[in-house]
Amino acid sequence: MGRRPVTSGLSHVSPQGGARMVDVSGKNVTERTATAEAWVTVGPLIAGLLRESGSVAKGDVLGTARLAGILAAKRTSELIPMCHPLAIDLVELEAELEENRVRLVARVACDGKTGVEMEALTAAAIAALTVYDMVKSAGKEVEIGPVRLLEKTGGKSGHWRREGHAGG
Amino acid sequence: MGRRPVTSGLSHVSPQGGARMVDVSGKNVTERTATAEAWVTVGPLIAGLLRESGSVAKGDVLGTARLAGILAAKRTSELIPMCHPLAIDLVELEAELEENRVRLVARVACDGKTGVEMEALTAAAIAALTVYDMVKSAGKEVEIGPVRLLEKTGGKSGHWRREGHAGG
Amino acid sequence: MGRRPVTSGLSHVSPQGGARMVDVSGKNVTERTATAEAWVTVGPLIAGLLRESGSVAKGDVLGTARLAGILAAKRTSELIPMCHPLAIDLVELEAELEENRVRLVARVACDGKTGVEMEALTAAAIAALTVYDMVKSAGKEVEIGPVRLLEKTGGKSGHWRREGHAGG
Amino acid sequence: MGRRPVTSGLSHVSPQGGARMVDVSGKNVTERTATAEAWVTVGPLIAGLLRESGSVAKGDVLGTARLAGILAAKRTSELIPMCHPLAIDLVELEAELEENRVRLVARVACDGKTGVEMEALTAAAIAALTVYDMVKSAGKEVEIGPVRLLEKTGGKSGHWRREGHAGG
Amino acid sequence: MGRRPVTSGLSHVSPQGGARMVDVSGKNVTERTATAEAWVTVGPLIAGLLRESGSVAKGDVLGTARLAGILAAKRTSELIPMCHPLAIDLVELEAELEENRVRLVARVACDGKTGVEMEALTAAAIAALTVYDMVKSAGKEVEIGPVRLLEKTGGKSGHWRREGHAGG
Amino acid sequence: MGRRPVTSGLSHVSPQGGARMVDVSGKNVTERTATAEAWVTVGPLIAGLLRESGSVAKGDVLGTARLAGILAAKRTSELIPMCHPLAIDLVELEAELEENRVRLVARVACDGKTGVEMEALTAAAIAALTVYDMVKSAGKEVEIGPVRLLEKTGGKSGHWRREGHAGG
Repeated sequence: MGRRPVTSGLSHVSPQGGARMVDVSGKNVTERTATAEAWVTVGPLIAGLLRESGSVAKGDVLGTARLAGILAAKRTSELIPMCHPLAIDLVELEAELEENRVRLVARVACDGKTGVEMEALTAAAIAALTVYDMVKSAGKEVEIGPVRLLEKTGGKSGHWRREGHAGG
Repeated sequence: MGRRPVTSGLSHVSPQGGARMVDVSGKNVTERTATAEAWVTVGPLIAGLLRESGSVAKGDVLGTARLAGILAAKRTSELIPMCHPLAIDLVELEAELEENRVRLVARVACDGKTGVEMEALTAAAIAALTVYDMVKSAGKEVEIGPVRLLEKTGGKSGHWRREGHAGG
Repeated sequence: MGRRPVTSGLSHVSPQGGARMVDVSGKNVTERTATAEAWVTVGPLIAGLLRESGSVAKGDVLGTARLAGILAAKRTSELIPMCHPLAIDLVELEAELEENRVRLVARVACDGKTGVEMEALTAAAIAALTVYDMVKSAGKEVEIGPVRLLEKTGGKSGHWRREGHAGG
Repeated sequence: MGRRPVTSGLSHVSPQGGARMVDVSGKNVTERTATAEAWVTVGPLIAGLLRESGSVAKGDVLGTARLAGILAAKRTSELIPMCHPLAIDLVELEAELEENRVRLVARVACDGKTGVEMEALTAAAIAALTVYDMVKSAGKEVEIGPVRLLEKTGGKSGHWRREGHAGG
Repeated sequence: MGRRPVTSGLSHVSPQGGARMVDVSGKNVTERTATAEAWVTVGPLIAGLLRESGSVAKGDVLGTARLAGILAAKRTSELIPMCHPLAIDLVELEAELEENRVRLVARVACDGKTGVEMEALTAAAIAALTVYDMVKSAGKEVEIGPVRLLEKTGGKSGHWRREGHAGG
Repeated sequence: MGRRPVTSGLSHVSPQGGARMVDVSGKNVTERTATAEAWVTVGPLIAGLLRESGSVAKGDVLGTARLAGILAAKRTSELIPMCHPLAIDLVELEAELEENRVRLVARVACDGKTGVEMEALTAAAIAALTVYDMVKSAGKEVEIGPVRLLEKTGGKSGHWRREGHAGG
């Protein structure tokens, strides 16, 4: 293709520099899991509104976010170009208000040939964006972050856990 | 519906506590813009790999992320439950490596009845997730954040800019 | 095309017998609304389980159904071949348990060139299917129906209301 | 999460009352089938129009409905929040005019870890909605219903058939 | 971004070389149409099978292709990265067997701020791919092409017609 | 269904003339590959613009086309009615300028029960449409074609290669 060959050290960037889906044909099907979290700093005003409305209303902001995250996990391969379509076996999404922040935690499991880290991260991120959408009328300074992987199991790299994460 | 009425102070939560799409029928069509950013802390090892590969390879990690963000902006109303479908007029997405972090900035414009903040945030977030996907083979500690609105114009609340953001 | 010309009396079937999207270019943009309902006969066993679990659990079966209906309204033109894409302004979806049946009511509004009856019906139907999915572990005899239009306003045919429907 | 634990007797409602996808990781892959039907009561006027137009035009109303149903079966996990993505092996959809009603019957097969009842029901329901869309210019009183499962095979609950359904 | 500035003479390639959606905010809404065709060279064996099966079976191969094209027109902005979402007003798709080739012609109309050439081309192309899928069991040598724009109206560039195309 | 039985010799057309998804339940999972190409005749003016802009800008026209093709491969079963959903293992898409034409080549691999010819053809076709979209401001006479299968492996029909294609 006329491009100088480049060794990139990144699996999604081919030697010629082009992007590619990692070839997983022929790989073993094993059990894969991943857990990711996303935080939304809503600030004291919005946190207060969420608490004042009682568990029902809070359930609807967080409940909507949870469903949006579960649905988004199933759409990850449509949104992230080099992701493989997967037949996901499980998506769990928890949403809780902790002081002035909302914490979303997504856990995904799949018997498959490739990991589900992107499914977990995408679920948590979209859930966080949904929280933002539900509360934005009360404040645009709301921030999302961090969004990060907490733990994964299965596959060639096996078990990995972020330092400081208790697991489970 | 048997639920106690609640005043929630949040536009997306109805007086009865249920979630709802804000009714924008009858509102004026005006020009709306929004700018949002997302940061990806890739760390020195991955930043080095991106720089060593030269502009072509870096272009492919960042180029893929930019396209994923542009496509995601157009799908925001499918992902965020209470968002309205919009006929977006423009999506711009910039991606740059700054030291050990990648910065994505999305700008969206629309002649419409409702703002485009969620389109800009979703574009930036999905672009960030794509960067993560492209580099994750070299490190799972990568973190996304903050993801936040920088500026918006149009509509009832008019012009808003985050403190410290130069604009443009 | 070699087919005998046929006058069909149906707007979506062209004189040659082929299916087509009704041409709405050049039509006026006016306010359109539509209300539709869907019933799910869950039977006394499941109705009891829903009531015993209290408003929180019931909220999650019905809450999930409501969100699924709202999201489906926005996807109607992808599912129903001859439907036009619309920039929907509002979707409201109510879900209530009435004796041994769940009733879903969807109301859709749009400033547009064509009606929103299919959006309301699709929202109600998908919400009903979601209720079925949530309860099916306790009984496969559950039936969905009727699913029908209750009321519509706007456009050439103006206001129509099903006999016996109080409106609102 | 601060909610009182609840035993709900419903597999899609977690002990805490939250909604969840049933965890099917580790389950055996077996052959699954499901058959569902949907009826559309079009009334004598529309039934007459469908018959007068001959088999070609009727084929297009029913043919469009059949294709919409087949396509919808493949999209079930996008529409029904707690449904798992499946690699469907077969979708068959029949559509016939019986007196003043249209009958749609969908049969779905899959070698998988979970049943395909929702795929069959969704296919039948969307096909019915498509019939409604094709004929609605001639009458808004058209009703859809019942939509219900007729038969299923495979999985833990094995073979189930609705009373009065001949099978096949 | 560290790239040398480049004047590209192409509207979708920004001065810095990056891809971008053309900014159509503020442009006038006018009537836009486009007509495109796609040919499928099926060869004499398959053409004979299509004719022998009579108009019903042929109608199903061509009928399926027509519906797939109409649905694809509505999804163009999801598939073509720099395309704008549009509220399409009309899609017409004709499919005919001409000797050993199938000809698909798509016509799209929209009151909008940007042209509908991509919608027409995508409709014709997906219809052609569908014909291929329906007949491929009888021959893999089938070729698609040409796929090309025949005519367009509206917008800044006004009326354009391919030489040799009669129009209409 | 009242239609005369017809033997059509085409697997996707049922004996009664109706369209159907081929039943692949119970078939063996084997490795499947397919390679397809699509050509875009851009003409000397546009080819010159692409060359003058240097590899960076050319990379963006072709880079955008490549990503669009990879994403489209994953969506084939949504676009082509009788296609089965597949868990694709690999999509590679090459894009090169050859004189006055752009050549796109897509290769798809999957461990599955059915071939991936449609995935490869769809990827190549959508990539070609994307090239057209990126260059159309400089010329509407651009033509796409041929789009055709070059090679396939696996499944009942085993290895097939188009005459004149070197393979690989």
